[in-house]
Amino acid sequence: MTDARRRKFWGWGWEDESPSPEHQGKIAELIADRFAIAVPQAAEPPTIDQIALRAPRLTPPAPLAALCSTTPYDRAGHTYGKSFRDIVRGFHRDFSNPPDVVAFPANEADVVALLDWCATSDAAAVPYGGGSSVVGGVEAPIEGYAGTVSIDLGGLDRVLEIDRVSRCARIQAGVYGPALEDTLRPEGLTLRHFPQSFEFSTLGGWIATRSGGHFATLYTHIDDFVESLRVVTPSGIVQSRRLPGSGAGPSPDRMFLGSEGILGVITEAWMRLQDRPRLRTSTSVTFAEFANGAAAVRAISQAGLYPSNCRLLDAGEALTSGAGDGSVAVLVVGFESADHAPDAWMARALECCGDHGGVVPDGAGKTRSDEGATREGAAGAWRNAFLRAPYLRDALVAMGMVSETFETATTWDRFAEFHAGVMGATEEAVQRVCGSGTVTCRFTHAYPDGPAPYYSVIAPARAGSQLEQWAEVKAAAAEAILRHGGTITHHHAVGRDHRPWYDQQRPDGFASALAAAKSALDPRGVLNPGVLIDPVRSGAPGLPQGSATTE
Amino acid sequence: MTDARRRKFWGWGWEDESPSPEHQGKIAELIADRFAIAVPQAAEPPTIDQIALRAPRLTPPAPLAALCSTTPYDRAGHTYGKSFRDIVRGFHRDFSNPPDVVAFPANEADVVALLDWCATSDAAAVPYGGGSSVVGGVEAPIEGYAGTVSIDLGGLDRVLEIDRVSRCARIQAGVYGPALEDTLRPEGLTLRHFPQSFEFSTLGGWIATRSGGHFATLYTHIDDFVESLRVVTPSGIVQSRRLPGSGAGPSPDRMFLGSEGILGVITEAWMRLQDRPRLRTSTSVTFAEFANGAAAVRAISQAGLYPSNCRLLDAGEALTSGAGDGSVAVLVVGFESADHAPDAWMARALECCGDHGGVVPDGAGKTRSDEGATREGAAGAWRNAFLRAPYLRDALVAMGMVSETFETATTWDRFAEFHAGVMGATEEAVQRVCGSGTVTCRFTHAYPDGPAPYYSVIAPARAGSQLEQWAEVKAAAAEAILRHGGTITHHHAVGRDHRPWYDQQRPDGFASALAAAKSALDPRGVLNPGVLIDPVRSGAPGLPQGSATTE
Repeated sequence: MTDARRRKFWGWGWEDESPSPEHQGKIAELIADRFAIAVPQAAEPPTIDQIALRAPRLTPPAPLAALCSTTPYDRAGHTYGKSFRDIVRGFHRDFSNPPDVVAFPANEADVVALLDWCATSDAAAVPYGGGSSVVGGVEAPIEGYAGTVSIDLGGLDRVLEIDRVSRCARIQAGVYGPALEDTLRPEGLTLRHFPQSFEFSTLGGWIATRSGGHFATLYTHIDDFVESLRVVTPSGIVQSRRLPGSGAGPSPDRMFLGSEGILGVITEAWMRLQDRPRLRTSTSVTFAEFANGAAAVRAISQAGLYPSNCRLLDAGEALTSGAGDGSVAVLVVGFESADHAPDAWMARALECCGDHGGVVPDGAGKTRSDEGATREGAAGAWRNAFLRAPYLRDALVAMGMVSETFETATTWDRFAEFHAGVMGATEEAVQRVCGSGTVTCRFTHAYPDGPAPYYSVIAPARAGSQLEQWAEVKAAAAEAILRHGGTITHHHAVGRDHRPWYDQQRPDGFASALAAAKSALDPRGVLNPGVLIDPVRSGAPGLPQGSATTE
Repeated sequence: MTDARRRKFWGWGWEDESPSPEHQGKIAELIADRFAIAVPQAAEPPTIDQIALRAPRLTPPAPLAALCSTTPYDRAGHTYGKSFRDIVRGFHRDFSNPPDVVAFPANEADVVALLDWCATSDAAAVPYGGGSSVVGGVEAPIEGYAGTVSIDLGGLDRVLEIDRVSRCARIQAGVYGPALEDTLRPEGLTLRHFPQSFEFSTLGGWIATRSGGHFATLYTHIDDFVESLRVVTPSGIVQSRRLPGSGAGPSPDRMFLGSEGILGVITEAWMRLQDRPRLRTSTSVTFAEFANGAAAVRAISQAGLYPSNCRLLDAGEALTSGAGDGSVAVLVVGFESADHAPDAWMARALECCGDHGGVVPDGAGKTRSDEGATREGAAGAWRNAFLRAPYLRDALVAMGMVSETFETATTWDRFAEFHAGVMGATEEAVQRVCGSGTVTCRFTHAYPDGPAPYYSVIAPARAGSQLEQWAEVKAAAAEAILRHGGTITHHHAVGRDHRPWYDQQRPDGFASALAAAKSALDPRGVLNPGVLIDPVRSGAPGLPQGSATTE
């Protein structure tokens, strides 16, 4: 955080980056028109002096005092992630359960000392990367602890080593996306992992939550880019070996990938990088029906072509994002490479589109070399809209709307029924709860065995009832997802908010095993309690007494 | 096992498939010539009537008696895997620690009942697929148990469901490679996973050991083909959800992948399949130096081309396999697809070879469509030799030779030093221990961040000292691998034989977590004791009493 610009403590991004009053006015008119409601007035965002915080219940020991903050800005800013629910609570000036202390470790030894302090003082330790969780992943537990320390890893923000030969780098976990790419760019390298939260999320957060990047196929989750990890647990430091591949037992890295801060604090990783792409081809193909577009995506995914982009938007989603007129589905398909012109790849992908009724623009599919050039065209416009979307969401919340997304994945054989079931259940709930509203869908990722559909909901809400209304819609959507064979999350993580459905989805035996692993690494149960599983807490550090089996 | 053909109880494959006496004679002459020793006499393989087995220490309960065998053939045949060490012990008629009972469950309920019996009778349960372990993965523990039950999954051998749309199948774990492919072929599908053990190994074994397939890049380990798993543990059945991708917590499947039978018995999996390739292009490129070939492999691996074959043989390995004259390194590079002619892919790969001094044959790289045709050419010859190699190894053992392999993976930045160090240490040990011998190397798999080198050792041994001599060479090789930053195994698994080095390689905290997970799923510690970790055994089923932390 620089002196010049400050992050919003209550919402997405920089304080000075929200839509202008003019832009907000236009959005308000569009909403009034689309949902046939009165032009909504935007509520004033909160200021920090309006926030009443509970007095801190913890006092850091003297050696840690310099790392710790109890300022209202830091505590309020670390109270929530960035979900719709979080932004609404921010607008309501509801910061009733803030962390007691926000710690800013400068190195790994600080992290060790902070976990020791939490263990001995019965405090919950909540690892905090960029704070972009949309699933309640960085909140303080309500009860059961003497207090909560939010551990902000932002000080561990360096690229420590670059191995140009193997195309890897040893990177501290607290680095934000843009700073990481700025460091790699002069080497001609990129992590090439661009989640929507890219600007305000960190490497450690991506790893802890199995983040999904912008690219559609092959390397989607951060998982495949992790070569080795270094994790501080209350029982010691776990460091895996740098290896391109291994078959020596279950993968240690895969245990920490998706562990969401309950097993340890990731401090470093060796990450697999790529040469920066310089040859690109991209085009938009229209389909009369979403189902035809889905069939084309399936064909492309199963052909072994691995496009970088393969984003199918339904007609409503295409309209909202400016990629279509609302009458047709749009598939943005693109290839990029640092090595070779991907013309042959694109040509075959466009054949697949044609096979399924796609309308391919004349002359589509030519590669351009764009070293140094900014991104242009439909894909570039989409990308900018994609990164700006969270700012827009804050504006919609200010106008009293429900505006949220949910995402999943399922297999192709079930997709038609799945999609109809999830859309139907969500639209029914939106109508029932909000009176009107839109539910739209796009594919964020595509696998040979199934797509990852992503749904967006915008609906007018009753003043003061936004949270309850959304909770009802979310429950209907989540139940339909589980009923029809999807996952409660493809890349947004579980946190606390997805627990009711995750608890149904994950095998009981795996939950037992994970709880036992947690007891071994975190015997006092201090790490991010309530996320993924309920910790078994023992009386003395290092001496678990409870049964590790929760079945 | 059919009535017509019987598996060797002491070595690789069918009893009637060993090299003919004439072939053995030629091998003996070649060996005498290469190592300047007397022409070795081949020892007679053991017959089952020569084997004296300890009386069974367990009696199956009546309801399980029909599934259980105590015949000498079954017990001897389930005593070992198929490593050099195993074959030597077989030739020595040393079957001093056989399983007491071999069980052949016909369904999942049988597996549950067998594990219940083991837990209540204090017996070790050793899951057994095809018995192709080369790391002591299927042996009975020496002590600490009332006896051992080898659970042969060969009766669970059916493909239960095929989902043509998502290209997946639900498959029982005990199916052997050829039977699986025979079932998928009429559907135009293939698992496309061909480990060297393919003919005599099973799906469940591949998953439990993170098997590596024949293909060189992208999809190497079985891990990526697993869509969901069903596992019988002593604490209950664990079934994960069919999903093309998910970010809901750590992957349950990845905990069982590589668990080598210590957490449960895999009974079924939904596996990702592929359309059967019909368009292929393959060629052999020669390099004056192995290092240049390695540089070409690195370039190809980092280019995003994903060849199916990218197998670099050093000069000695090329000579042994008939792919070269011993003066040059040979890279067999190939692409195949069910969807598109991979000419553009091959053209770029051959440019990478040329950039690093590779000599590309004129006219190389044209795609041929070979539906229904048998494989031909260098790649086909290599493949046949590859699958026949284990039979040859048995013949070398019969002649008193040391003949074994070891394999690993490391990053590109360290490769030159790594390879020199491992070759040097191994060659030094071979000279010191055996007087003469050859150590050769090939790459089995290649990743953007490093290769998987595979080393073969052939050396003359002193009569009666084969095991001790190999143990000394293996220790020297393994220590060099760890010292120079490799993994003790890329795809042969850990078993019991790799424990000394695996225990150094895996992070202690991960071992604690894995031990705790095992205690939750297998509280009596009956499953495959001694593999990967030492089990913590509790007094009563379902009530672990020991600390889950082993650090």
